[in-house]
Order: sequence, then structure tokens, then C-alpha cells
Amino acid sequence: MPFSDSAPSAPTVYSTVAAYRAQRHQWHREGKRVGVVLTMGALHEGHLALVEAAAAENDVVVVSIFVNPSQFAPTEDLDRYPRTFDDDCTTLARQGHTTAVWAPTVAEMYPSGITTDPAQRRGTFVAVHGKSHQLEGAVRPHFFSGVATIVAKLFHILAPTHAYFGQKDAQQCVVLASMVRDLRMDLQLRIVPTHREADGLARSSRNRFLSPEDRRLAPCLYAALAAMQAAWTTAPATAVADLLRHAQTALNAALAQVLPEASQEARRARFTLQYMSVTHPDTLEPLETIEPGVGALASAAVLLGQTRIIDNVLIGLTCDQWCRTD
Amino acid sequence: MPFSDSAPSAPTVYSTVAAYRAQRHQWHREGKRVGVVLTMGALHEGHLALVEAAAAENDVVVVSIFVNPSQFAPTEDLDRYPRTFDDDCTTLARQGHTTAVWAPTVAEMYPSGITTDPAQRRGTFVAVHGKSHQLEGAVRPHFFSGVATIVAKLFHILAPTHAYFGQKDAQQCVVLASMVRDLRMDLQLRIVPTHREADGLARSSRNRFLSPEDRRLAPCLYAALAAMQAAWTTAPATAVADLLRHAQTALNAALAQVLPEASQEARRARFTLQYMSVTHPDTLEPLETIEPGVGALASAAVLLGQTRIIDNVLIGLTCDQWCRTD
Repeated sequence: MPFSDSAPSAPTVYSTVAAYRAQRHQWHREGKRVGVVLTMGALHEGHLALVEAAAAENDVVVVSIFVNPSQFAPTEDLDRYPRTFDDDCTTLARQGHTTAVWAPTVAEMYPSGITTDPAQRRGTFVAVHGKSHQLEGAVRPHFFSGVATIVAKLFHILAPTHAYFGQKDAQQCVVLASMVRDLRMDLQLRIVPTHREADGLARSSRNRFLSPEDRRLAPCLYAALAAMQAAWTTAPATAVADLLRHAQTALNAALAQVLPEASQEARRARFTLQYMSVTHPDTLEPLETIEPGVGALASAAVLLGQTRIIDNVLIGLTCDQWCRTD
Repeated sequence: MPFSDSAPSAPTVYSTVAAYRAQRHQWHREGKRVGVVLTMGALHEGHLALVEAAAAENDVVVVSIFVNPSQFAPTEDLDRYPRTFDDDCTTLARQGHTTAVWAPTVAEMYPSGITTDPAQRRGTFVAVHGKSHQLEGAVRPHFFSGVATIVAKLFHILAPTHAYFGQKDAQQCVVLASMVRDLRMDLQLRIVPTHREADGLARSSRNRFLSPEDRRLAPCLYAALAAMQAAWTTAPATAVADLLRHAQTALNAALAQVLPEASQEARRARFTLQYMSVTHPDTLEPLETIEPGVGALASAAVLLGQTRIIDNVLIGLTCDQWCRTD
């Protein structure tokens, strides 16, 4: 169905490559700017902020909703990942910015089939060497190859001129910016600041899995990261080791406020910090000091019950300056 | 320079992504079919046949000339690979079918840099698992990742609607067809039959490195492959083991004709067969029998002095039926 026949508030849903491509070729001939937002569904305010950013500088906005099996390990939560397609479409229609929703089957995205066991995989995969093995990649070894591969496919299908990603998935932003630059893809990445709850917790589809007490503990992660950002703003020469001590102090204080009765050991057992790291914003190499004009990515992950929460702040640079592809 | 302003016989040379892309976006708006032929230069009749095929079904033909470092191993012939850019442009102009030549620097194709040592590589690479490790891949372990990566980049830059490859590089055809299908690239591959000398030798830029005697020995490879094809045509139920015996007999007879005085051992020492193999045309799994409707790829490689020569024939299927991407 051509774009001009759709009411602006009701996105057209495409689920086959052939149907979408016929429309995309028309947009090509019309010279349209096409902004895409790639999601795994379970849309929240953070996704809507990406759609908002896409609508501001494109003629057409396409939202992809696809839960990608290849970025889950066999032990991970592929089956329990929330799937709320009808609600997502209603949310997008209400917001009124989305032209088309891309909602393919697994077979449409993986014509050669796919397994969650990386050793068994056959077919074509994209890997970004040097930026995929640390931080999140250390905990989830095949994750970023899964991400780069599915995003390459989605870019080939959707053919965006601009693609919008949330700062919250920071290493994903770095990996995808490398992929776009290295593989000479004809599109621009845009990184949109993390959308947060009033108490600082970064919006994430996985937040709904937190128990009430874990939900109260979760914002402590951002408190620790924000303390580093504040310390650096006050004294930009501060060594990274000192910034990390600030973060630890802030984390302990925040945990003590949520669990005043518990011992420090009990708090740490509930709030299992997996890493807290200050790295170069592009190479992801650990830093000892933060260079003005370069800045840093401070990122962290915590396990709360069964649910992993990640978060990050940029120090000394903005989202606009980071992950440039032009 | 817009297409319509160029004389048809003088291709416009582009060497930066920005300059080419401005032209490509114009072709997009005009709905042009863009056929590409990817070469490492040193153009011969085989390349011109690819250009001819591209011209027959496209509005625009782009020939890429780039010697790709990432598909040479540190020990291989990157430095001695023939570079004849001016002659190549003259040849294309004389043929009169080429609209544009893409002739980038190494830095333009590898913005993150490149080394011929795969262990040192950083940046984004594409790999086709399951089809890259056997046949040529067994002799050259990183070769097809290098090929898939550079071709992905060239496809992203050139944005062809159709891409033309020679049957002679058979495993490359299989790997690239997988890449296009798996990564959902928006283009069609076309495989063009191998162009041969009068004595059967497949055209190759490396043939110029053969000594006069090795040049006389080289066609024996095709004689062996053609014998299998002939035997199968006469008796399609023939087991692959028997076809390979036919090939060996034909090879021995052909070598004896070129070197009548030499012993069988001396002939085999001069003509070092690296493999001779009959596989499924898409999966590249070795076959015991050839199924009607599926067919087979019979391929071989020989070392003559310092120069490797490869060749293949399709059995029971045509180039048009093979490596389909639509």
C-alpha cells in the first residue's frame, strides 16, 4: 500500500521483504529520507524518544519489531523476552510519527535457519573485531556478532538514510558505528540520550522483570555512574581510579538508603555488580585519565535476581559527538 | 559528472565514496538498473564477457578495479599481482559498455586500516560459515572472509541492482550467493560461464606468470574436468568415484602429450594437483552420486611453478540455474 494512502497515525505493517522493498524503491525514486528505529518490541518511552528523533529529520519513519534469536545465548531469556506486538502498534499509532512497521518472521530474517548455539551456526555473520569482546561482550561472547549480523540484515532490507539507537546500549552503538564506517554503509547513525525514570533508572524492556525490592535497588547503578560524571565535571584532571572510588562510595551510600537494615555484604550479594568501567568512547580500551576533546564512556552492569541491568554515562562528550558515521 | 554528460565510450573514473554516491543517488531517483563487475584489474576477455552481460540487462555499468589486500595471505602474491590501470581503462573505453570505473585507494576501502596478517585485523569482517573452509578455503584459510568483506563494502558503495561474477571462481560464487541471500542484500547475482583459451585454459590474470612449458601443461586441468562432464553426460548414473577415475585417466593422457619423454612421476612433480573434487553445487559437501535436478560442481587446483591455477565445470546444471539469489 503506497505511503500516501495510509492515514498518518496508522502505520502500515510489512512482514515480507518483497512487499517492503516495493515501497522502499518508491521512496528511493521520490528521494525520501527514511529514518529507522530497530526494536525487539515491548516499546516504552525510550523507544518513543527514538521515533521522535527520527520523525524530526526524515520524511518517513520505519519501526522494526523483531526479537532476534541470534543475540540470545542458549541459557538466556529468548523465550521469556516480552512480546506485545498489538500494544506496540497501538502505541506507535497513538504517537502518530510512524509510517511503517517492519515485523518479519524468523524465517524471513534467517532464510538459512538459525540456532541459539553459535557452534552450530551456518550462513553469513558479521563481526566487529576489537570492540565486541570486552564489557558486555565478556559476559555474552557471541552477543555483538548476533547484533551486527541482524542489524546488517535489517539495514539491507529497510535501506534507511538514518538509523536511531539509544545511548543505553552503549557498546552496541560503538559496534554498529564501526560496522557502518568499515563496511561503508550508506546511512547515518544517530545516538539518542538514555530515557530515564524519575529516580534515574534507565528505561528498558527488561525492567518489568524486577521484583519490587530489586526495582528500588536498580537506580543505585545510575547513582554510581552519575557520581563519576559529577566528579569529573568538578575536576576534569581526576584520575580514572579516583573516579571509580567516587562511584563505589556513591553506590554504597545509595544501597544503604534502600536497604538500611542490611549489612554491606548482604547489600552486595543482592546487587551483584558485574563490571564498572571507564573506557575510551570509541576503542573501548580502559583509560587511566580522560583526555579533553576525547572523553570517556563510563559503563556498568548489575545482576538483580535473574535480570541483568546495564547503564552508562558519557563523560566529556555528548551523544551528538559520539559514534559519528559521517 | 552526470551520466548523460559522459560520452558512452569514456567511463568516468570515481575514487571517493562521496563522489560516486552523489551519482548513485541520482541513478536511484531515475530508477536506473545498475550492473557491476568487480575486478582486481589486469582485465582480459573473461572480464569483458562480464561487462557484456552487465550491459545487456542494465542501464548503467560500473566496473570496480581494486586489488584487495585482505584476500592475500602474508606469503601470497599481493605485491606481484599485475596492476595495469591505464590499459584497463583503455580496454573498457574501447569496448564501449562501461559508464563508470570505481578505482579507490586502500584507505578509502579500509578506513580502519588493514594488514595481511589476519590475527592482527581490527574492524568489521563478514564470514560465510560452512562454505569457506573447504576446497580453496582449505589452502587459503582467510581468503573467503576477505572476499566476502570486500564485496560487502563494494556492494554498499556501488549499490548495484545486478552483480556479475565469473564461474571460474566457483567457490567465490557460492560464498557470495550465500552472503547476498543471508544478509538480505537488495541485488541479484549473475554467474557468467568461464571464458577459455582455444586450448581450454580458463582465462585468468595469473596466467601471465606461467612459464612457456607450464602454459602448455595448464590446459590439462580442464581436460580432466571436461572428461568428468563428458562421462556424466553419457551415463548420468556414474558414481563420483568412477568420474574421478575418468578424470585421472584423462589428466595422465593430457600430461603425456605435453611431456612425452618424462616419466609419470616427473610429470606429476611438474603438475602438482592440489585437489580435484565433486561437490554439491550449493553446500560444497562432497558427493558420492550426482542427483538429477541438483547437479554438481567439479573443481580442481594445480600448482605450476609458483602459480596456482584453478578451474571447474558444472555437471547437470547451468550457470543460470546455479547461485540464484531471487
